[in-house]
Formats: sequence, C-alpha cells, structure tokens
Amino acid sequence: MTTTREPTPPERTPSRPLTIAQIAELAGVSPATVSKVVNGRSEVAPETRALVEDLIRAHGYRRQKKRPTAAPLVELVFHELEGAYAMEVIKGVEQVAREHDLAVVVSELQEHQPPARGWIEGVIGRRPCGVIVVFSGLTGAQREQLRTRDIPLVLVDPTGDPGHELPSVGAGNWSGGLSAARHLLELGHRRIALITGPAHALSSRARLDGFRAAMDAAGVPTDPALVRQGDFSVEDGLAHARSLLAMPRPPTAVFAFNDAQAMGVYQAAHELGVRIPGDLSVVGFDDVPMAQWLIPALTTVRQPLTEMAAAATTMVVALARGETPPQSRLELTTSLVVRGSTAPLAA
Amino acid sequence: MTTTREPTPPERTPSRPLTIAQIAELAGVSPATVSKVVNGRSEVAPETRALVEDLIRAHGYRRQKKRPTAAPLVELVFHELEGAYAMEVIKGVEQVAREHDLAVVVSELQEHQPPARGWIEGVIGRRPCGVIVVFSGLTGAQREQLRTRDIPLVLVDPTGDPGHELPSVGAGNWSGGLSAARHLLELGHRRIALITGPAHALSSRARLDGFRAAMDAAGVPTDPALVRQGDFSVEDGLAHARSLLAMPRPPTAVFAFNDAQAMGVYQAAHELGVRIPGDLSVVGFDDVPMAQWLIPALTTVRQPLTEMAAAATTMVVALARGETPPQSRLELTTSLVVRGSTAPLAA
Repeated sequence: MTTTREPTPPERTPSRPLTIAQIAELAGVSPATVSKVVNGRSEVAPETRALVEDLIRAHGYRRQKKRPTAAPLVELVFHELEGAYAMEVIKGVEQVAREHDLAVVVSELQEHQPPARGWIEGVIGRRPCGVIVVFSGLTGAQREQLRTRDIPLVLVDPTGDPGHELPSVGAGNWSGGLSAARHLLELGHRRIALITGPAHALSSRARLDGFRAAMDAAGVPTDPALVRQGDFSVEDGLAHARSLLAMPRPPTAVFAFNDAQAMGVYQAAHELGVRIPGDLSVVGFDDVPMAQWLIPALTTVRQPLTEMAAAATTMVVALARGETPPQSRLELTTSLVVRGSTAPLAA
Repeated sequence: MTTTREPTPPERTPSRPLTIAQIAELAGVSPATVSKVVNGRSEVAPETRALVEDLIRAHGYRRQKKRPTAAPLVELVFHELEGAYAMEVIKGVEQVAREHDLAVVVSELQEHQPPARGWIEGVIGRRPCGVIVVFSGLTGAQREQLRTRDIPLVLVDPTGDPGHELPSVGAGNWSGGLSAARHLLELGHRRIALITGPAHALSSRARLDGFRAAMDAAGVPTDPALVRQGDFSVEDGLAHARSLLAMPRPPTAVFAFNDAQAMGVYQAAHELGVRIPGDLSVVGFDDVPMAQWLIPALTTVRQPLTEMAAAATTMVVALARGETPPQSRLELTTSLVVRGSTAPLAA
C-alpha cells in the first residue's frame, strides 16, 4: 500500500471509538473504573457507571487488546419464569446449546419492573456468546450495553416492536388467527368472542388481524362487544368468559389467545353449566403439553415454542461466530390442532 | 514451634494427594493432559480421562497453586426438563441465586441414559460455586469428580438413596402420604387405590409407608390389587385408572402420587362416565399451579417445591463458602390442600 494517512487524533473525532484512558479522562475517573464498567464488574457507583456508559454509547470504545474469548455460555432471559410456555422454550435452547457445548444461564426479569439494577452488568461480566430474550423487555440502554460489548442479542416472539436491527424469531401469529377463525366459521359459528393478549403485544395484534381477515372474507362482522382484552392469565380468561357468557346474546364460540386463558373459559363454562363443546366451542393458542389433557381436549393453534427457541439459539451462535444469519427475522409456522373443544353450531 | 518432621515423600504415601506431575508420571501422560482433566477441558481421549480420574479418585490431587476462584455460577441439573414441577424448582433456585449475585446454569440429563459424555467436564470447566441436582442421577464417579474439585453438591428431593455424606433437601413425603389417607378415611372411603411413583423413588416409598400407617391405625387393610406402580406421567395415571375403574369392585377413591397422574385419573373417569367426586374421590401430590384449575379443582398434598429449591441453593452457597450447614438433610413440610375432587363416600 502506498497511500498513508495522518492518523487523526482520536480525541478530536467523536466518530472514532475512544480508548479506556480517553473515556477515563472525559469522565474524570480512573482508567481502572472505566475498565470495570466495560467488563460489567460491580464495584462502581451508579452515577459513575451511567456517565461512563453514556460516553461509551456516544463514542464507542476501542479495545487495547484483543477481545477476551467469550465464555461457553448462552444467556436465556425471561420476562417472567412461569408456565409451560417457559419450559418449552428452555428445552429448545438446551437442545441447540448442547450441540455447541454451550451452557445455558437462565434468568428472569422481575415482572412489572425494569430489569434489576446490576442484571445487565452480570451478563456482561459473564461474557456469554450471546443473549436470547423471550419477549422484549430490555431497555434501549441495555441493548446498547450488549452491542458495545459485541454480545449478540436475539429475541424470541417479541411482543414489542423488535425494530429493524435486532434479529428475532416469531411464529405465524396472523395465519394462526386466520386458521382459528376459519375453523369456527366452517363449523357454523358467527358469534365468536375473542379474549386477546395485552395491548402492547404485537403477537396478539397479529392474531386479531388474522382472525378479522377470515371473518371479513366470510362477510361476518366482528361484534366489538365480543372482543375482550386479556393478559394471558387463567384468571383473566375466567373473568372475561364469565362476563361473555352472561351477555343477553352470549357467544357460541370463544377464541382465547393463549391456552391459559382457554382454561379460564373452561372454568367459567363449568361454573355456569355451559357445556363444551355442546353449548360453546373453545379454541386456544400455543398447544402447551397440558392442552391435550384438558377435558375435553383443547382445540388450539400450535405455536412451535421449542423449535422457535432452538432457531433463536442457532441464530445467536452464528452471530457469535461473526456470521450473518440469512435472515434477521424468522417466522415459524403455526398449525391448528383440532381436538374435542370445538363442534358444529347446534341448530 | 519446636517439633519438626521429616516431610514424607509424597510418592510413597498413597494417602497424601498426588501432584499433577506425579499423576502424569503414574498415568504415563503429560502434566498438561492431567491438568486438562482436572479442569474439565475437552481435548482428552476418553480412556486417558478415565485413567487420570481413577488416579485422582484413588489418591486425590494436590493443587500447586491456590484454587482458582469459583465463577459466580450455580448449576441446576434436571433428570428431565418437563412439566410444572421443573419450573417451580427453577424459580426457587433463581430467587436465592439472585440474592447472592449468582447466575443459574440450567441443564438436563437426557432421559433413560447416563449423563451425556462430557457433561460433567463442562460443569468442572465452568468452576461453579456448586451444583444442585433434582432427583439423583449422577453416577458415583461424577460425584467423585465434583468432590475432588471442591465443588459442593446438593440434592433436591432425591429419589435414590442420598447416602450419608451428601446434603439434600426433601419434603415430608411420609406425612404427606399419611394426611392423604386420613382425609380419605375421614370421608368414609375404604377401597382406596394408589398410583405410586417408580420403584426406585424413595419419595414414593415414603408416601406409600405414610399412607399405610394411617390405614393400619384405622384398622383398614390395603388391598394389594388396588396398588399400582406408576412413572409419574399423565399417560401412566390414565392407563392405571382405566384398569382400576374396570375392576369388578372398583375403588371409591384414588391417591395418585403426583398431580400429573391425577390428571390421568380425571381423563379415565371422564371416558368411563365416572363422576369426580360423586363416584370417585381423587387426591394428587405436588400442588402444581395447574391443580387449582382442573375441573373439579384437585385436592392434593402440597409439596413446597420452590421453597425446597431455595433451601438447596442456600445450602450450596454456604458449602461453597466453606461453612457447614446446620444439618445436611432438610425436610420441608407438606400440607394437604382440600379442593373439589374429594367428597364423602356415597351411601
């Protein structure tokens, strides 16, 4: 190479990452402190950490040495460790992690609060190959902290907007909603109630849109009084179903946006002497292992949770190797599993 | 100190731990290879590893340097990642681990086979503070591998004989069996069937013994034809219940040794038109979150799984700090939760 360029002094070009020494100078702290923040160590005052993180975010930081090798770990983070759903996801991650000799660290972001202070520092300190988050729940700052440390992040079934730059794995929620509606329409149902997921959940919105697409195609209007917003819990399914079944013109079918809510519908129907599927057809979503053992067995839209988690793990492993996955958004197919909880509309 | 002793040459005293160099000489391999085995690294031929492990087991090994600090990890190992049971355990371990800034590595021993080759090496290589095993399933050799590396091991609800030296946490299985039997006896039941756990499960044997103690105290014989051995799965509960309900004199109550088997009983009863609790009372064991949502809600012996897992984690953390736990076997209390699946014997 014959061209030479004057090296630009790093302190004058904000676009060039700063060294730890430069960040220390700007922040007015010791390089050792900056190094602690970079490596997710714990003995740093919160304000100092925030200041240093701000500088890293604004300028990036330049490693003095080669990046230390990542530990043979992959981090799996849940919004909340609850239910059969979470277990299916853990199994999927374990399967792929085992093939790559990676151990799986499972952690939980406490419900209804941002991730515990120090959680992200713990992750950074462990130097995992990558992080898999089930439902988004990381703040922008936390995502930045991972990005600046070259720790890849993949989302499973994000309920928030995953944005463009973040790789994610989801399921065909829209088609799932469509297939549930078509099934109930074919059985003759017209007054079909919905117990959706929470408003912020994009997966729920996609199921609703798919459902409406089938209804519109069949020329059947969706009665807004029959659409109830749930929070994916059994309790919520129960409360909504009680209210729906007490209507002057109750629905003849309910599509619950997860299996837990469908179980709440079973409970309400039992309380009120409504027979499933004789008086009321019920469709769930997920196909958790329990669904086949409900009485009657639940007709539900199967979401391949284990496969989704496995795909996310494959993706994070590829990213950790510096490979670019062929696509940054993967959607696995849902399928309707017809069992005993749906029947033709009684004449 | 005025007494001096001639240091005994280590190679002549098998009771004194050998150095890595000495082990290498005995095994006819390089010290680097022995070091790899000691630290759970992977690039060692299986026969060589076995030979070196045998020498370590027989003689112990002496560290040249101070033991490297343990990583802030605790390992949680399941026989099989399945069901609500496992999720309750994970939650309990997470709770305590979080308090101690420890991350939880979750792994699974594949069903019906010894732990995968290399699994134990992975654990050793990660240098966790400790290992929590749900149900025993480790071989004696694996336990030795942990012991010789000073990695403490605690068992949760061991189904095999935990032995004397291994700390463990269980539940009051015997009292649980007793309380289930007393409840059914008080309701007037005499023909009470049992669907037990597998023969190797000590917890199952304790439940059976407690059950029999209550029956004997009441002077009610246990009909051997009504005692069936299950494997803790829904399918097994279903198969046994079908057979029990088809008997010329069917039982009026069933005590299933876990909630999954109780769900199988529900299924069989439904198939055969047997009403719960009108025709048949059912008691389960565990009180998984689902139990309250069965129709009718399941009467069951609550096993405090989350608390048991938390106690095991506290124990492993104490051991990692070199403390001796006040007791090496902890039994948490079980309690009967009476719900809708049990009723007085119909006259």
